[in-house]
Amino acid sequence: ALQRERFVSTMKEQAEIGGTADGGLHRLTLSDDDKEIRDWFMEQMTAADLSVRVDEFGNMFGRRAGTDPDAKPVLVGSHLDSQPYGGIYDGALGVIAALELIRTLNDNEIETEHPIEIVNWTNEEGSRFQPAMQGSGVWAGAHDLEEEYAKTDVDGTVFKDELERIGYKGDEPCEPPEEYEAYLELHVEQGPYLEENGKDVGVVTGIVGFTWGAITFYGEADHSGPTPMHYRQDALVAAADVITQIRRIPSTLGERTVGTTGYIDAKPNSINIIPEEVTFTWGFRDPSDDVIDEARRRVLEEAEWAAEREGLEWEYEDRMRAPAVEFAEGCVDAVQTAADELGYDSMQIFSGAGHDATHMHSICDTGMVFAVSENGKSHNESEYTSWDDCYAAASTLANAAVDLAGG
Amino acid sequence: ALQRERFVSTMKEQAEIGGTADGGLHRLTLSDDDKEIRDWFMEQMTAADLSVRVDEFGNMFGRRAGTDPDAKPVLVGSHLDSQPYGGIYDGALGVIAALELIRTLNDNEIETEHPIEIVNWTNEEGSRFQPAMQGSGVWAGAHDLEEEYAKTDVDGTVFKDELERIGYKGDEPCEPPEEYEAYLELHVEQGPYLEENGKDVGVVTGIVGFTWGAITFYGEADHSGPTPMHYRQDALVAAADVITQIRRIPSTLGERTVGTTGYIDAKPNSINIIPEEVTFTWGFRDPSDDVIDEARRRVLEEAEWAAEREGLEWEYEDRMRAPAVEFAEGCVDAVQTAADELGYDSMQIFSGAGHDATHMHSICDTGMVFAVSENGKSHNESEYTSWDDCYAAASTLANAAVDLAGG
Ligand SMILES: NC(=O)NCCC(=O)O
Ligand SMILES: NC(=O)NCCC(=O)O
Repeated sequence: ALQRERFVSTMKEQAEIGGTADGGLHRLTLSDDDKEIRDWFMEQMTAADLSVRVDEFGNMFGRRAGTDPDAKPVLVGSHLDSQPYGGIYDGALGVIAALELIRTLNDNEIETEHPIEIVNWTNEEGSRFQPAMQGSGVWAGAHDLEEEYAKTDVDGTVFKDELERIGYKGDEPCEPPEEYEAYLELHVEQGPYLEENGKDVGVVTGIVGFTWGAITFYGEADHSGPTPMHYRQDALVAAADVITQIRRIPSTLGERTVGTTGYIDAKPNSINIIPEEVTFTWGFRDPSDDVIDEARRRVLEEAEWAAEREGLEWEYEDRMRAPAVEFAEGCVDAVQTAADELGYDSMQIFSGAGHDATHMHSICDTGMVFAVSENGKSHNESEYTSWDDCYAAASTLANAAVDLAGG
Repeated sequence: ALQRERFVSTMKEQAEIGGTADGGLHRLTLSDDDKEIRDWFMEQMTAADLSVRVDEFGNMFGRRAGTDPDAKPVLVGSHLDSQPYGGIYDGALGVIAALELIRTLNDNEIETEHPIEIVNWTNEEGSRFQPAMQGSGVWAGAHDLEEEYAKTDVDGTVFKDELERIGYKGDEPCEPPEEYEAYLELHVEQGPYLEENGKDVGVVTGIVGFTWGAITFYGEADHSGPTPMHYRQDALVAAADVITQIRRIPSTLGERTVGTTGYIDAKPNSINIIPEEVTFTWGFRDPSDDVIDEARRRVLEEAEWAAEREGLEWEYEDRMRAPAVEFAEGCVDAVQTAADELGYDSMQIFSGAGHDATHMHSICDTGMVFAVSENGKSHNESEYTSWDDCYAAASTLANAAVDLAGG
């Protein structure tokens, strides 16, 4: 069994790097704080006798050997980057649980047939650089390395430059060095369903797909007073028209469909100038790829109408398209069995957030464990999971991993 | 007659201070460039033998004595600050025309019965600090000095600190030192009507009133994926709902009513976080104060509905309420007569932009001259008025001023 005190204190330790005054975490990918947490994680992996490697995209791996030289490794992990002013569990819980699994195997001198490898993926969050799940996406071959290197943040800083700056552009190619047996990831649910149903732990059966993109309207800056309404080409009014539709489109599609505009930037942003250029994002998610494609089609149609009404030029940029995935039965069963054997009350659940597991699904059998998220809240400093719930999920992950690794 | 070459070269000279690469002007009030243009203007006034004073709000005056010691001064001027990436005529044209009027009187040794005073008002634009027409408003007693000193820009910089920093917190009280005979101001129209009607110059009969304010919605940051639509408290969706209505409310009120959102700021502004706090502005203008008050009532009603739909807290802040004014007959006639005598084809027109003349109206008889704005465009680097049109308006202003000053 995992050592609860060490597990909790390790969780608290990681939360200090990039921790905010309000108890959250502001540890954006490739920031100075990301470098610091990576240095810390490297130390922990070395101290746990793992053989460590960093790939050219900054993904960090630590391997514990198995007894069978021909057995494929079981990969377990998540991410240590955070949202802007996000929570201390999102991502980190899965990495620390993987680390604790290794420490526990070491403490108890338990051997497994398959190697167990733990991983910290680069830029899972997708807030500073899009897409989300970027490191796992490149590693799994869903994205092109050079294209992702060239991505820029809102300040124009280039991904590759930042990766080099923090010293985590490793030597290994960003790709699987061999075949993998399975991938397991623990994450907080980030939604309300486990709590609403009074469950201890979630057995994840799949992940919604999503479409992300940005629309820019180009109007004409002009005086907000003497310019008659019918002379105007107001980029912000068009953006507002589309944003209200992004709230409403989901209700016309599916029960689980969600749509969000998280980002907006208006220029010149002066109280008495008609906005000339406005960029904003869309995001839609659903368990069905057809629904996702339809939502994207509709938002672009709304943009076309809004541009026509205001007499604007416009363009859009796709920023992400993650497929909806359903996990392999073997992994779902391993997680379900682990939860059952540990006596946890569980339910099967489809993830509404994206996870690195999305991309791992194309590489090997994949499964996930969810920990309860109080009030379903995340991407917020007040994100909260009790230590009991963290421990239940970490124990489930550990047992499922050892099961799959033949321990 | 005004010396055309000197007038044009002085216009070009001022446009170099804070000039942009694209031929516009970025000379925000109380910025370093504002200091520089003020220093330059001070030199020009001194060179023109004016007796100069700066008041405690930074308004700059230069007086040319009259022949009758009991005659009240005629005030002529406008403003030298600009919008962010605005045009080179807005404001500056009126100040340079006033300066050229003085130079021309000096050149020709023309005496006037009344003193003529020229003025550069502080912060007419209202972009960096609200309200607009701030310096003239304090001077005319429409605003309280200390309240306006305490205003902050979006970075939290305090007005009074900036005024001291650039060295233009003068010694004179910010109020009329005596009674004034009249106030005249030349400005570009900033709207399309003169050009549409093929006119040389505009005789302004009054100025629309306006209401400005800012609304802030407070929602909850949460994950844009696993958070079901009915759990959300999305501050940006509510803002978008209100912004689309700000485009539409004018069409339900009056022929000249306009409504604009020029500014928006969303937090945390991340593609996969539901926006938690959004601030945006409203601005409505109309020749009728009743219409303006009704527009303000309606936008606050829309905000209340939007907040209720999204389950948000919200608040608003009034940033400006300028009354609609109709100019005194004597000044309108003086401008009309000047245009007629100079042989310019003119039309009477109601201003859709705010001007310092709004506040002067409460102090003394007030009038304005408009120069043609090509395409009605302003608050944009591509704002344009031909030198012919600039000269026609400046000549009209000069003749009207000399007429009112008894020259
Ligand atoms: N799990 C998680 O928050 N991932 C970030 C990418 C996304 O789903 O928005
Ligand atoms: N004339 C002018 O642009 N004034 C600025 C204040 C306003 O009318 O918006």
